[in-house]
Amino acid sequence: AEENPQLTTKIQAIQKQLHELEKQLQQTKAAQEAAFKAQKQQEQKEAHSHHFEFHGYARSGILTNDHFSSTYGQKDLTPAGSTGGYLGRLGVEQKTYVEMNFEDHQNLVNGAHVRYKVMLADGQTSYNDWTAKTSELNLRQAFVEMSELPSFSGPFKHASLWAGKRFDRNNFDIHWLDSDIIFLAGTGGGIDNVQWNDHAHSSFSIYGRSYGDLDNSGIDNFTLTANNYYNHWQWMVNVMRAQNNKKRLNTGLSEHYATDKGIHTMLAYHGSNFYGISKGTSKIALLYGHGLGAEVKNIGSDGNLINQANTYRLATYGTTKLNKTWAIAPALMAQRSHNRYLKSDKYDWLTTNIRLNQQITSNFSMQYETTYMYMDIDPQGLKGDQAVKGNVFKFTIAPTFRPQAFTSFFERPEIRFFATYMNWSSALDKYSTTDAFGSAGFKSGGTVNLGVQMETWF
Amino acid sequence: AEENPQLTTKIQAIQKQLHELEKQLQQTKAAQEAAFKAQKQQEQKEAHSHHFEFHGYARSGILTNDHFSSTYGQKDLTPAGSTGGYLGRLGVEQKTYVEMNFEDHQNLVNGAHVRYKVMLADGQTSYNDWTAKTSELNLRQAFVEMSELPSFSGPFKHASLWAGKRFDRNNFDIHWLDSDIIFLAGTGGGIDNVQWNDHAHSSFSIYGRSYGDLDNSGIDNFTLTANNYYNHWQWMVNVMRAQNNKKRLNTGLSEHYATDKGIHTMLAYHGSNFYGISKGTSKIALLYGHGLGAEVKNIGSDGNLINQANTYRLATYGTTKLNKTWAIAPALMAQRSHNRYLKSDKYDWLTTNIRLNQQITSNFSMQYETTYMYMDIDPQGLKGDQAVKGNVFKFTIAPTFRPQAFTSFFERPEIRFFATYMNWSSALDKYSTTDAFGSAGFKSGGTVNLGVQMETWF
Amino acid sequence: AEENPQLTTKIQAIQKQLHELEKQLQQTKAAQEAAFKAQKQQEQKEAHSHHFEFHGYARSGILTNDHFSSTYGQKDLTPAGSTGGYLGRLGVEQKTYVEMNFEDHQNLVNGAHVRYKVMLADGQTSYNDWTAKTSELNLRQAFVEMSELPSFSGPFKHASLWAGKRFDRNNFDIHWLDSDIIFLAGTGGGIDNVQWNDHAHSSFSIYGRSYGDLDNSGIDNFTLTANNYYNHWQWMVNVMRAQNNKKRLNTGLSEHYATDKGIHTMLAYHGSNFYGISKGTSKIALLYGHGLGAEVKNIGSDGNLINQANTYRLATYGTTKLNKTWAIAPALMAQRSHNRYLKSDKYDWLTTNIRLNQQITSNFSMQYETTYMYMDIDPQGLKGDQAVKGNVFKFTIAPTFRPQAFTSFFERPEIRFFATYMNWSSALDKYSTTDAFGSAGFKSGGTVNLGVQMETWF
Repeated sequence: AEENPQLTTKIQAIQKQLHELEKQLQQTKAAQEAAFKAQKQQEQKEAHSHHFEFHGYARSGILTNDHFSSTYGQKDLTPAGSTGGYLGRLGVEQKTYVEMNFEDHQNLVNGAHVRYKVMLADGQTSYNDWTAKTSELNLRQAFVEMSELPSFSGPFKHASLWAGKRFDRNNFDIHWLDSDIIFLAGTGGGIDNVQWNDHAHSSFSIYGRSYGDLDNSGIDNFTLTANNYYNHWQWMVNVMRAQNNKKRLNTGLSEHYATDKGIHTMLAYHGSNFYGISKGTSKIALLYGHGLGAEVKNIGSDGNLINQANTYRLATYGTTKLNKTWAIAPALMAQRSHNRYLKSDKYDWLTTNIRLNQQITSNFSMQYETTYMYMDIDPQGLKGDQAVKGNVFKFTIAPTFRPQAFTSFFERPEIRFFATYMNWSSALDKYSTTDAFGSAGFKSGGTVNLGVQMETWF
Repeated sequence: AEENPQLTTKIQAIQKQLHELEKQLQQTKAAQEAAFKAQKQQEQKEAHSHHFEFHGYARSGILTNDHFSSTYGQKDLTPAGSTGGYLGRLGVEQKTYVEMNFEDHQNLVNGAHVRYKVMLADGQTSYNDWTAKTSELNLRQAFVEMSELPSFSGPFKHASLWAGKRFDRNNFDIHWLDSDIIFLAGTGGGIDNVQWNDHAHSSFSIYGRSYGDLDNSGIDNFTLTANNYYNHWQWMVNVMRAQNNKKRLNTGLSEHYATDKGIHTMLAYHGSNFYGISKGTSKIALLYGHGLGAEVKNIGSDGNLINQANTYRLATYGTTKLNKTWAIAPALMAQRSHNRYLKSDKYDWLTTNIRLNQQITSNFSMQYETTYMYMDIDPQGLKGDQAVKGNVFKFTIAPTFRPQAFTSFFERPEIRFFATYMNWSSALDKYSTTDAFGSAGFKSGGTVNLGVQMETWF
Repeated sequence: AEENPQLTTKIQAIQKQLHELEKQLQQTKAAQEAAFKAQKQQEQKEAHSHHFEFHGYARSGILTNDHFSSTYGQKDLTPAGSTGGYLGRLGVEQKTYVEMNFEDHQNLVNGAHVRYKVMLADGQTSYNDWTAKTSELNLRQAFVEMSELPSFSGPFKHASLWAGKRFDRNNFDIHWLDSDIIFLAGTGGGIDNVQWNDHAHSSFSIYGRSYGDLDNSGIDNFTLTANNYYNHWQWMVNVMRAQNNKKRLNTGLSEHYATDKGIHTMLAYHGSNFYGISKGTSKIALLYGHGLGAEVKNIGSDGNLINQANTYRLATYGTTKLNKTWAIAPALMAQRSHNRYLKSDKYDWLTTNIRLNQQITSNFSMQYETTYMYMDIDPQGLKGDQAVKGNVFKFTIAPTFRPQAFTSFFERPEIRFFATYMNWSSALDKYSTTDAFGSAGFKSGGTVNLGVQMETWF
C-alpha cells in the first residue's frame, strides 16, 4: 500500500505533539520531584535543628468567705498539713500558682536526642497585678537529658542520661489532694530507662538537697535512688546521707538532735484499669521511711527528722466512668509517723477524698468533691503546739466550664465556680496559736468559701 | 479502503505511547494530590495543636542631666503624679521596663479556641546588667480564655469566658502620657463579648484586689464590672466592696477612716477619625467615681479612699496626619478629686500634651513633645505635704530612628535620642520634702535632661 | 490518495485523546504552579512576620568534698579572685547558673531587620527545687537592634543601631577560666559594624552603669567606646566619666577618695589558627586602664577605683587538636594592678590553665584540667585583709558524656563527673577572715572536690 500523504502529515503532527506532551510531562514530574525533595530536605533540616516547646501549669482565682471577706485556703491548713495530710483541693485554693517550662529539643543526625528544660514558677496570694514585693518567682528546674546515644548498647541502648536541677521523672501524684505520692527533686544526675528486658527497666540517680547553714557551713543531703519497674510494679529504694546534720537541734534538749542518715522504700502498683473492677486507672503505693527517710513523699527534704523516726504511708487513687454522665475519682492517703522530730511524738492521719463529675453539656459539668480526714497528732510540745485528735469534713460543689466534653479527669483547662462547706472537731482549733484553724472567723462550727478559678496544664 | 500496514503500525505505536503518557499523567496527578492532601493534613494538625506566641513591650535607655549626673525621670514626678496627673513621657523616662508575654493557643476540632497567657514584668532604674538585689521581676498576668464554645448559642455564641489574673481586655490608654484611661486589673473571672445584636455587646466580670493586712487579716476588694458597647459608644459601670476596710485609718484622727464601698462609671466615645475633622483616630472619656470608686483609672486599687470621696475626670486624645511630613497627636486629661483621703482635701489638675512627628527619611524622624500642666492640690497635711498651686512646662526634641517610614504613632520599635527642657512654678518645690521637685539640683528654674532610649512592642 | 475512513477515525480518536491529555497536563501544571506560588507566598509571609527564638546557657550540678560535706566552689575563691584572677572552672563550680534568652526577629518588606532580645538569668547555690528566698532571678538584657536600614548608605549600609540594656556584642572570653577578656555591659545605645572598607569596620557606643547612692543622689558612670577592627586586629578605646563619684571614700582616710574619670584601651589579635603552629583558634589581648578604667575587664563597673590606679593585663588562649584522640586548650591571664583602691596597694597575679580532651568513644571523653596561679597581693589593709604572696594548684579529671563525637571545645551539652584536687600556699589562708581559703575544713594542705554537672548553650 502506498503512503497516504494527508494521513502521514497528520500522524507526524500527532507524533510531534506527543513528543511535546512527553517533554512537558517529564518537566512537570521533575518539578514535582524537586519540590518534594526540597520539602523533605526542609523537613529533615527542621528535624535536626533546635525545636522550642512551651509547657505550663497554672491555677488562679479568687476565694472569699460568705461575707466576701478574705478567708483561709490551703490544702495543708489542718494540723496534719505540715506532714502531708491534705484536704481535697477543689474550692480551697486561693493562690495564683504558675509553672512556665521552656524546652529546647534537638534531634542529632546520629540519632541522639537532647532535651534541655528550664522551669520558672511563682506562687502568690495577692490578687494584685503588680506583686514585686511578695513575688516568689524562682527557677525550679534546669536540666539536660541525652538519649538514644549511638555508642550505647545492650540495656543502655535507650537509656537517658541527665544532670542538673529537676523533678525526678518517676514522680507521680494524687491530683485531687494536690499531693505527690513521690516527689523526689533537687540537683544531681542519673540514668533513666536502663532496660533489662521487655518487662523490666530501672533508673538510678543521686540528688542533692540543701538543709541551710549550721555553724557557718552549709549542710547538704545526698540521696541515692534506684527505681525498678517490672510490668505494673515499681520498687523504689533510697538511701540518704547529710554529713554534719547531727549538729541540728530541734528543741533545747540535748536528746533532740536531728539525724544524718536515712532509708526509704516504696512498693507501687500502676494499674491499667479501675482496681480490676472497670475501665479506668488506679495506683496503689506503700511507703516506708526511717531517719531522714521518714519524710516519705518529699524525699530527703526534711533535715529535722531524728534517728528514731519511722513513717508508714499508704496512698491510692483511681478514676472511672460510672455511665455516660457521671465519672468518679476516689483517693485515700494514710500515714503513721512516730518519733519524727521528738521522741514519742506522733503524726498519724488519714484523708479520703472523692471527686465526681456530672456532665451537663459538652462545655459544662457539675463537679462535687468530699473530703473526710481523721488525725491524731502529738507534737510533744514542738513549737508550743498542742496534742489534738479529731476529724475534718469538706464538701464542694463546682459548676465547671470546659472547651470540650469531659473525657477524663486529666484534661484542662477548666474554669470553675465553687461553693465549699467545711467543718471540723473543735479540738483542732487548739493545735496552734498561729495557724488557720481557730483564728478569728475561722473556727469549728462550719465555714463557707466561695470563688471562681481557672486551672490549666499543657 | 484497505489497511495501510505502515500507518497502522505507526498508529499502534502512537496509541501505546498515548496510553503510557496517560498512565504517567495519572501518576503525576495522584502524586500531586497525595502531596496536597498530606500538606492539608499537616496544616490541619498544626491548626489543632498547641501554638506558641511571644509578645512583649519594652523600653530601656539612659537619662542624665546636662552635667552627665543622674537626674529625676518619672512621668509622675509632679505633685499631681500620685493621683494620676502625668507628664508627657518622651524624654523623662529613666527606667528599663519590660513585659514578656508567653501565650499558648489551641484551636480544638470542635471549633473552640483556648488561649492561655502568662506575663512576667520588671521595672528597674539600675543601668547595671546584674540587678538581682533591686529586681522587681514579677508575674503580672496568668489567665485562661475559652471562646467559640460549641454549646453556647444566642448572645453567647461568640462570647469568651475567662478566669485568672489579668489586665481587663477593655482597658485603653493615652500612650503619650503613659496613662491608661481605664486600668482594671486583678484576679477574677468574667465573660466578654456577649453580643446582643450587630450594634451592641457587653462584658461582665468580677475582679479581686488585695489591700494588705489589717489586724492580721487580709482585706480584699471585689469589683463587679459591666461594659456595654453600642456602636462607637461605651458605658462602663463598676460597684466595689472591701469588707472590713473601714478599720483603715488614714491619719491619727478618728474621722479619717477609709470606706468599704464605691461606685464608678465611665462614658466613652471611640472615634474612627480625628474628632470628625480629618482621617485618624480619637477617643473621649468622662469618668466619675465615689468612695472606693474615686480612683477613677486604676479601678478598685486604692484602699485609702474615704466615704465622701468624689472624682470627675475627662480624658481625650487623637492622632492625625497634617501632611506627608508631619503628624500630630494631642492629648488632654483633667481631674477634680475632692474629699479623697481627708475631708476637704483636693487633687485638681489638668495636663495637656502634644506630640509631633516630622519625617525626614524613611528611617529617621524628628519628634517634638510639649506638656503643659496646671495643678491645685491641697492634701490637708496628709504625710506632712503642703498645699500648692502652679504649673509645669516640658518640651522635648527627639531625633528618632525607625526600621521603616512613619505610618502611625503606634508602630515600634523606635530608637530615639532626646533633649528635654522642664520648668515649673517655684511653689511646687515646697509640696513635699521627699519628692523630686525641690531636691538638690532639681529645682524650679529650668532643668535639662539628655538621653537615648529604645521602645518596642509586638 | 483517498481517505482511509478507518484510519481517519482512529486518528481523530487519537487527536481527541491528545487534546484531553494536553488539557489535563495543563491543569496539572497549573495546580503545581498554584501550590508552588502558595508555598512561596506562605514562606514570604513567614519571612516577613515575627519569628521567635529561644537561646540559653546553663550549668547545674552538685559539688561535695570527699566526706560528702558541702565545700567551696567558685572560680574566684582565691585572694586574686576579686580583681579577676580565676581558677580553671572545671570541677570547682557549685552553682546552678541559667540564662534564658527570648528573641523576636522581624524581616521587613523593605529589607530592614529588627531584633529584640530579653534575657532572664539566675544563679543559686541551693540544691533545692524551690528557691524563692534565695532567688537571684533578674533581667540582664533588653535591647532592640535595627540593621539593613534602606536609607542608610556608604559605611552605614550594613550598620546596626541599638539601644537598651545589653552585653556588648564585641565582648569575648576565655571559656575555661569563665572570664571574659572584655565584658562591657550596661544600659545605653550605639552603632555596630560601620564598614570603612573590606578590611576595616568600627563600633561606637555609650554605656551607663549605676554606682549606687551617695548623699541621697545616684551616681552613674558613662563610658564612651570605640572598637576598631582591621583584619585580625582589634583596637578598643574607652573613656569614662562618673560625675560626683569623687565623694566616695574607700576608707576613713581623706586621701582615699575614688575618682570620677578613667581611660581604657585594648589591643587584640583574633587568630584563625593555633598561634601560627597548627589548625585551631587563638586570641591574644593586651589591656591597659587608668583611673575608673583600671578595672580592665568589666569596663566602667568599679566605682571604688582611685585616680592613681593603673592596671596592665595580658590574656590569651588557643585551641587545637593534637591528633585524632587528643585536643588541647591552653590559656593564660596575668595582671599588674597598682594603687587600685588605696595608695601603694597591689593586686598582681598570673593564672595559667590547660584543658585536655581525650576522646574514648563517640559519646564519651576524658577531660583533664590543670591550673597554676601565682599571686602577690597587698590590699594595704582594705577591709582588714592581709598582704599575701603564694601560689595555687588545681587538677581536675572529668569523665564526660556528649551527644556526639568531640569536634571542638565549644560544643555543648556535656554531662560530666569530676574529681578535683587543690592545694595552695599556706600563706594564702591568712588573706581574709571571711573568705573560703583558711576556713574550717578548707585549709592549705590539699582538698578534694567530687561532683557531677551539666553544661549547655544553644
